[in-house]
Amino acid sequence: MFKSIIKLIAAVTLFIGFSASAFAETTMSDEGQYIFNSLAFYIGGVLVAFMAAGFCMLESGLVTTKSVSTIAAKNIGKFAIASIVFFLFGYNLAYGISEGGYIGSFSMWSEGSEIATGYSDSSDWFFQTMFVCATVSIVSGAVAERIKIWPFFVFAVAMAGFIYPISMGWQWGGGWLSTAGFSDFAGSTLVHACGGAAALAGVIVLGARSGRFTSQGGKRVMVPFAASSIPLTTLGTFLLWFGWFGFNGFSQLAMGTFDDVTAISKIAVNTHLAGAAGTFAGAVVSRLIGGKTDVIMMLNGALAGLVAITAEPLTPSPVAAMLIGAIGSIIMYFGTKMLENFGLDDVVGAIPVHMFAGIFGTLVVPFTNGDTSFGTQFVGTLSVVLFSFILSYLVFIAMKGTIGLRISKAAEKLGTDKAEIGVVAYSIRD
Amino acid sequence: MFKSIIKLIAAVTLFIGFSASAFAETTMSDEGQYIFNSLAFYIGGVLVAFMAAGFCMLESGLVTTKSVSTIAAKNIGKFAIASIVFFLFGYNLAYGISEGGYIGSFSMWSEGSEIATGYSDSSDWFFQTMFVCATVSIVSGAVAERIKIWPFFVFAVAMAGFIYPISMGWQWGGGWLSTAGFSDFAGSTLVHACGGAAALAGVIVLGARSGRFTSQGGKRVMVPFAASSIPLTTLGTFLLWFGWFGFNGFSQLAMGTFDDVTAISKIAVNTHLAGAAGTFAGAVVSRLIGGKTDVIMMLNGALAGLVAITAEPLTPSPVAAMLIGAIGSIIMYFGTKMLENFGLDDVVGAIPVHMFAGIFGTLVVPFTNGDTSFGTQFVGTLSVVLFSFILSYLVFIAMKGTIGLRISKAAEKLGTDKAEIGVVAYSIRD
Amino acid sequence: MFKSIIKLIAAVTLFIGFSASAFAETTMSDEGQYIFNSLAFYIGGVLVAFMAAGFCMLESGLVTTKSVSTIAAKNIGKFAIASIVFFLFGYNLAYGISEGGYIGSFSMWSEGSEIATGYSDSSDWFFQTMFVCATVSIVSGAVAERIKIWPFFVFAVAMAGFIYPISMGWQWGGGWLSTAGFSDFAGSTLVHACGGAAALAGVIVLGARSGRFTSQGGKRVMVPFAASSIPLTTLGTFLLWFGWFGFNGFSQLAMGTFDDVTAISKIAVNTHLAGAAGTFAGAVVSRLIGGKTDVIMMLNGALAGLVAITAEPLTPSPVAAMLIGAIGSIIMYFGTKMLENFGLDDVVGAIPVHMFAGIFGTLVVPFTNGDTSFGTQFVGTLSVVLFSFILSYLVFIAMKGTIGLRISKAAEKLGTDKAEIGVVAYSIRD
Repeated sequence: MFKSIIKLIAAVTLFIGFSASAFAETTMSDEGQYIFNSLAFYIGGVLVAFMAAGFCMLESGLVTTKSVSTIAAKNIGKFAIASIVFFLFGYNLAYGISEGGYIGSFSMWSEGSEIATGYSDSSDWFFQTMFVCATVSIVSGAVAERIKIWPFFVFAVAMAGFIYPISMGWQWGGGWLSTAGFSDFAGSTLVHACGGAAALAGVIVLGARSGRFTSQGGKRVMVPFAASSIPLTTLGTFLLWFGWFGFNGFSQLAMGTFDDVTAISKIAVNTHLAGAAGTFAGAVVSRLIGGKTDVIMMLNGALAGLVAITAEPLTPSPVAAMLIGAIGSIIMYFGTKMLENFGLDDVVGAIPVHMFAGIFGTLVVPFTNGDTSFGTQFVGTLSVVLFSFILSYLVFIAMKGTIGLRISKAAEKLGTDKAEIGVVAYSIRD
Repeated sequence: MFKSIIKLIAAVTLFIGFSASAFAETTMSDEGQYIFNSLAFYIGGVLVAFMAAGFCMLESGLVTTKSVSTIAAKNIGKFAIASIVFFLFGYNLAYGISEGGYIGSFSMWSEGSEIATGYSDSSDWFFQTMFVCATVSIVSGAVAERIKIWPFFVFAVAMAGFIYPISMGWQWGGGWLSTAGFSDFAGSTLVHACGGAAALAGVIVLGARSGRFTSQGGKRVMVPFAASSIPLTTLGTFLLWFGWFGFNGFSQLAMGTFDDVTAISKIAVNTHLAGAAGTFAGAVVSRLIGGKTDVIMMLNGALAGLVAITAEPLTPSPVAAMLIGAIGSIIMYFGTKMLENFGLDDVVGAIPVHMFAGIFGTLVVPFTNGDTSFGTQFVGTLSVVLFSFILSYLVFIAMKGTIGLRISKAAEKLGTDKAEIGVVAYSIRD
Repeated sequence: MFKSIIKLIAAVTLFIGFSASAFAETTMSDEGQYIFNSLAFYIGGVLVAFMAAGFCMLESGLVTTKSVSTIAAKNIGKFAIASIVFFLFGYNLAYGISEGGYIGSFSMWSEGSEIATGYSDSSDWFFQTMFVCATVSIVSGAVAERIKIWPFFVFAVAMAGFIYPISMGWQWGGGWLSTAGFSDFAGSTLVHACGGAAALAGVIVLGARSGRFTSQGGKRVMVPFAASSIPLTTLGTFLLWFGWFGFNGFSQLAMGTFDDVTAISKIAVNTHLAGAAGTFAGAVVSRLIGGKTDVIMMLNGALAGLVAITAEPLTPSPVAAMLIGAIGSIIMYFGTKMLENFGLDDVVGAIPVHMFAGIFGTLVVPFTNGDTSFGTQFVGTLSVVLFSFILSYLVFIAMKGTIGLRISKAAEKLGTDKAEIGVVAYSIRD
């Protein structure tokens, strides 16, 4: 009997040893997952932060030389203001929502990490804050060269503190859109179309820059305004593109398992290829239609492709991702011409890039993700776009009628850099 | 009895299985911690490396157009030189110190990683080296446009090889300041005030740029010199800001546990909000006092806020972090005016940003971290600042009396780009 | 007997408990390794992506002002095109090769990750794709200011789809060079010399820019062309340098063990010090020989140092790494002069930086890595360089004889920005 006991113990020992080793080899511990997930938010947050610099460079390069310091002030200023108000109440307006609800709670964000949450609360806030900064950035370029700087900052408070958090909470906070089955992985609609719709409201309320449109034979004609620096615009586009690897990839919101890190990687491939196809489509379309290989259409084409894939960067095949990116870019191209025909002066093309390509990207999700329906996508997109447009419009109109929104004609002629910032952007002599 | 044995074995098996699984779920292995910690240093090092580009862009944009190539040469040069001397002897002057000591050993750094150390030695050296590069960068901008390039490189050797490593070793190497209970998490004093004090010494020894100050009715008046490129300065500030996520966050020096990654994330939030509040304070103060929303004060305000939070980015609440950032920014604003009144020509505002806000940030630590005393903070800050100032002063004076420090009047009129580098910075025609 | 059984069980329990805990403490699980390895590719890919922006800024700054928009269009365009063709067939031409073979299969890349592979397929593709983008970038600058944009895009297809994948597959795909014992860790030859040889072919076929060389007393003299923006060139160099931390470090291809992350960290140190020494050597050599501390020679010196260490960044001691970097830089300096003497117009110095320093770096591997032989290194380098040069030459010549390669004299005088892109790069007024 002693022998049998020994054998039994040996067997048990072997079994235990085997299962312990099997366990250790195939499962990440809770603490390990917590670290990986928090790190994902951290890296993702830093990458999306680069988009703030990207937007700033893109816009600095596309405005005329007399408004570049203003763009710089607006971009660093909104980076600060959006972060502060999102901390003070924006975050909880979005994420403090009840299931299926319409608005969260008005309270300050606070950190209360436990290992069971799966990630550090602070890393989550950090990541989400960089998204709200991106949303406000979209507006900044469209309304450039004629908006007063402090009213723009007031709008940044409205956008980062209320408009974006509320409509974003409908989906990512678990509100009514989420319950309805709407799908927008990283924010083609919740970030980009939302920002683009606000930009459209601003462009309409403000009107075009002086001298931007003239009349020739009763027809409206756009006067070309020279972009101050194409290399900075290009740098900005590259930075945005790289930021998108954080924006889309880490919207997986976890990295601590085989499935999550594999998803993040697939998303990176689809995101990159959609941007690539958008760039190429911009080159081809501008060459075929305009005669020149217009670098601005290539850059905005890249961004439109990236915006379009953002609603669903995981389920498409790489070929489908390229198709989505290319179509997003083509929509941007014709959307740009359409706005010009309507006499709308979107200085950097923010509306066609973010709103038009964003809407397209969201509506096209059902083609690659069977769990979604076109109807729900349509309702969700429409709701967010209308909500953002109407509220932004009201905010802009309210400021126009009170504290004033647009700089004076004299100030516009002088340039906002001299009139409002007191610092000339360039002093270059060779 | 056989049955009881079986039962016992079953119980033991269950117990062991349970504890093994519990163990695996809540504890990161030594190797896992080693990987996470080394990765933290790697990512942190890359982020802090971006600060080198940030300083270069910031300074390139703030100097006049005839000194931009020189700034580029100085920044890439000091990035190289500081790294080499920190490898050859700087690292061990700091970290080869005995407990409570004053100076480490004069020897070459070498790598000897073991799993028990908790991180790769090389990753640690990589991270620390990027800090010394940042410290030297602070000086580069302040003394721009009139220092000769090779004497600046000699100073970079002194700063990166001796001044910074010795005083930094007092604390981070475990020397006398550490024993005394001084606290400076990521270097408000050890990096920023140290660099700023060296900059002050340089500015005093060199004197102002020709024509910078004139006399009007017996009063000294500063003549505005046009910054060459505000967008590059803004880009530089953004890069510095992002670099700070590595600078402060990964100064936690570990990432492989729940506690460490949670701390890193909290630090990111506080760092970001302090920078945000500093930016906003710069906008408000410049608008209220100067009448214009001065973009340079917003950018330097961001940096001052970031510098101020660096001494203790973990213990403050986010609201306290914002307060610290905002006060740091206001101190920078009035410090800038004060230097001008003293006739000191700090080209980029390095002294108010790094020295003044750095001292403030270190002294304010006891208000949010109960483990520190104001007295010790005062002694520590004063010691490092005086040490850096005096030694830098001696090095600058010694060069002035021997190899020469300042370019000739003719060379200054021509510009250092033509006189010393032989490459004009810009050739732009539209 | 019961007591002995209890004791035995206790002992077994203790033993099992001990081994389970020991196991958990020293071994990373398969899933953990998979996550770390995929994350390494992800971070590495993002860092190498920054090199695309780096090349674009470097080239934007070094061309004359009338070709800057074209550089932007070429760089964002080739980033897109190279990625697409590498997806469509380039990747499998390289990695679908049989052991010891010469060429892979002509098929689309597809993802099929399993935990057993050790990393996500998508993350690998993402990382490798950024390498092919870097290779094509090398050519872009050398042939600037006179190549037509669409023929350049056709060449990008040839380079990214065929030339680079085939010769790279010889080694990294496990083809004949790998079997022969050739060693090129991160691509001094496979990326840099390959790209540099293609650049040389392009420069020869295209000829120099109009007016670049004149004759003085029967001797060829180079006419200096003013670089448009030194700060952008410097920014580009910094971005390339930081990208190299991904390029070399994560070419370890794994991060999930003590050995791998330690290797990655050592590589970061050697890479950084080689770049530092290359920078310093560029400063010294240009000062001693040319009289001025030429910032362009410092920047290209940094890159040459980085290129030279790329073939073997792990085995050298840090001192050896600095030596390799410095010699690479000196070779670049004299190689630049040599090309000028031959009347070859390499606009940005891509050939001396990437081809000359790349060949040197590969040939010098046996001095620090005993597992390699000079003969094999010589054969490998020669094979790749010749293959790339000959095929690139044929592609350029074929285009010259058919669709045309060089812009017209009138277009060159006007500048490619106006002639081909329709967007002037700068419009700066102060």
